[in-house]
Amino acid sequence: MSGYCRAVYRCFDEKADFQKKAQSIAVGLTVGSWTELPEAQKAHMEKHLGKVVSVSEYGGNASAAGERYADIVIDYPDINFSRDIPALLVTIFGKLSMDGRIKLIDIDVSDDFLSAFPGPKFGLTGVRGQLGIPDRPLLMSIFKSVIGHDLGGLQEQFYRQALGGVDLIKDDEILFENPLTPLEKRVEVCMEAAARAKGETGQDLLYAVNITGPTSQIAANAKKAIQAGANALLFNVLAYGYDVLAELSRDPEINVPIAAHPAMAGAFYPSPHYGIAAPVLLGKLMRIAGADLVLFPSPYGSVVMPKEENMAVRDALLDPALRIKTSFPVPSAGIHPGLVPLILRDFGSDVVVNAGGGIHGHPMGTAAGGQAFRQAIQASLHGVPLRDYAANHPELAAAISAWGVRE
Amino acid sequence: MSGYCRAVYRCFDEKADFQKKAQSIAVGLTVGSWTELPEAQKAHMEKHLGKVVSVSEYGGNASAAGERYADIVIDYPDINFSRDIPALLVTIFGKLSMDGRIKLIDIDVSDDFLSAFPGPKFGLTGVRGQLGIPDRPLLMSIFKSVIGHDLGGLQEQFYRQALGGVDLIKDDEILFENPLTPLEKRVEVCMEAAARAKGETGQDLLYAVNITGPTSQIAANAKKAIQAGANALLFNVLAYGYDVLAELSRDPEINVPIAAHPAMAGAFYPSPHYGIAAPVLLGKLMRIAGADLVLFPSPYGSVVMPKEENMAVRDALLDPALRIKTSFPVPSAGIHPGLVPLILRDFGSDVVVNAGGGIHGHPMGTAAGGQAFRQAIQASLHGVPLRDYAANHPELAAAISAWGVRE
Repeated sequence: MSGYCRAVYRCFDEKADFQKKAQSIAVGLTVGSWTELPEAQKAHMEKHLGKVVSVSEYGGNASAAGERYADIVIDYPDINFSRDIPALLVTIFGKLSMDGRIKLIDIDVSDDFLSAFPGPKFGLTGVRGQLGIPDRPLLMSIFKSVIGHDLGGLQEQFYRQALGGVDLIKDDEILFENPLTPLEKRVEVCMEAAARAKGETGQDLLYAVNITGPTSQIAANAKKAIQAGANALLFNVLAYGYDVLAELSRDPEINVPIAAHPAMAGAFYPSPHYGIAAPVLLGKLMRIAGADLVLFPSPYGSVVMPKEENMAVRDALLDPALRIKTSFPVPSAGIHPGLVPLILRDFGSDVVVNAGGGIHGHPMGTAAGGQAFRQAIQASLHGVPLRDYAANHPELAAAISAWGVRE
Repeated sequence: MSGYCRAVYRCFDEKADFQKKAQSIAVGLTVGSWTELPEAQKAHMEKHLGKVVSVSEYGGNASAAGERYADIVIDYPDINFSRDIPALLVTIFGKLSMDGRIKLIDIDVSDDFLSAFPGPKFGLTGVRGQLGIPDRPLLMSIFKSVIGHDLGGLQEQFYRQALGGVDLIKDDEILFENPLTPLEKRVEVCMEAAARAKGETGQDLLYAVNITGPTSQIAANAKKAIQAGANALLFNVLAYGYDVLAELSRDPEINVPIAAHPAMAGAFYPSPHYGIAAPVLLGKLMRIAGADLVLFPSPYGSVVMPKEENMAVRDALLDPALRIKTSFPVPSAGIHPGLVPLILRDFGSDVVVNAGGGIHGHPMGTAAGGQAFRQAIQASLHGVPLRDYAANHPELAAAISAWGVRE
């Protein structure tokens, strides 16, 4: 799109004149007033005026079920805001977010706006390149517990995860700078464990270390971690703002993939009436801001997101129409090996299978937990039913006994 | 409170065992696992373990109306997180925000956590000191329209607002760095208009200029504005993160009051089931992060917040139990002079009456709009009914003719 950034809102109201509402948004969030302007001023101001693209009304009459609402599409002139996500969001959903039952359900940024963002530095293909794995689904593992553990304890947990053949290990998002496992020491001992495990497995892995602290120190902390050997970063994007991620992604010294954690996302996306829809919040904006991998709630576990919304997040991360690199989808929570065929059916091969309890809770231990997942991935890629593959793979068999199969 | 930060959640579920849910939160967001730990490890880990303080269940049986829910109170050990708002929020509501229908409805930070925050540099009393107005309600004015206007147009609007006797003028939150009215030039021409108006009114005023741009440049941009003569700042806190405000408030060179704008707040607070309640979002966290003034939707206009929630925001900004300076409450939207008695009854004198349309839309013009508000404030403080006071005050009389009175 050229010259305008588009926002799509779902607006609920039993009585409103939605056409009028749309006009008031388009004017109110741009030039402030329009109909009363003198004609000469209109000519000058027109390039700043928001445009109502469409208003589609639903429900609200005797024959229709459900609440009355409208999907309102507005184009906002690029000329009105700077090329950063805070400016975009404040323009399209700053004041408006407080104006009744209204949810931001989609955005479409202009080529010019997008051109200010390098996007993911590695993206899906780059992450695969770092690991030397061109096409199979990746496997990510989450620490079982981290708070209160010392470096030795963390290293041991890391080693057991790495032995299972996982491709990525992520810090817990609630692990902040602390005296027991300070950032640089943590990176050192975990990367040492990674090297040791590689001696057994022959396999590389990425360790996404959680970057925390004051906002002004985030980039410096990321560089410290990289200096200490970190080959990936984890970042709680919504707690710091998209722009902090965008600045990390622009920084040439941040030369490792960044995984975006969705912490706080549930404060925005689940309400039908308010907030920001998940495909915008965890899809488009994360990708534009430069996340190489994006974690989001899977539709399988206890922390759920409806399947349709989940697929829309995936689509936003992979959409070829957005001309920056794609972001690796990482559906998370409630995942065990028996779900792998379903995950691959939903997501295809371009997915990171992410597990915590499904690895550490394996009856034969953490390493076997990782192995069971790798076996499930292998079986699924070859179209072999998991129960058949499990006949010769005791780790997968034990996982299936514990958690079952859904294929 | 000592050693723990408290979070209060409202959790909706038709069937859940809320006691069990509370335990799983307290363990899951801290040490990760508990009952299965060996006793020796429990002794070591106990200081990291979250504590369920109380679980109060409501509804859900035949005799009770409405949905079934519980208010769950959990204490989180300070030892688990660093002394910054992102760490606090990620701990207490990061993953949990995505775990079903759950809303963060209150927080109570420990003395130790709070001690890392200087709080508002000026606060309510300091803002009064800057203006030399020890006790009356203040009057803030919002530009009518800013986008597409040049420096001359902006200066003229500023001057007319200043002539009306307003105490503060704020930039529009959607005014970003732009070639027509760049930050430093804008400050210069507006402060020149302020000085010129002072020649007429004898009155000082604060101009809260909108600080925007990349996150890493926010502090530098604020200093540029101050260098150019700005005597207050406006900041879209939620678009950048609380920590950016906290860093501004800690910076000794940021020696002017900061007004926090609530842009994006509607993405968080209005749903009963999800998000963060307004008294936390716009009350406690804004004050802890160091906002000297906080704008929030008034209960009077089109952008509304229920009265009870509005009073809770006010209480959070002024609560003497929180041992940092107080923040000036600025209820905004839909305010005209006829509402002033009601505003003062709801908020007392420690309030900033904030108006846009109620000033610029005055039948006798912008300056008269400000004067009508000042007259309404004067009348209310002396207990004189507005209609009586209007007999000798044509500006107030015209405002009442246009918008009526609610007292």
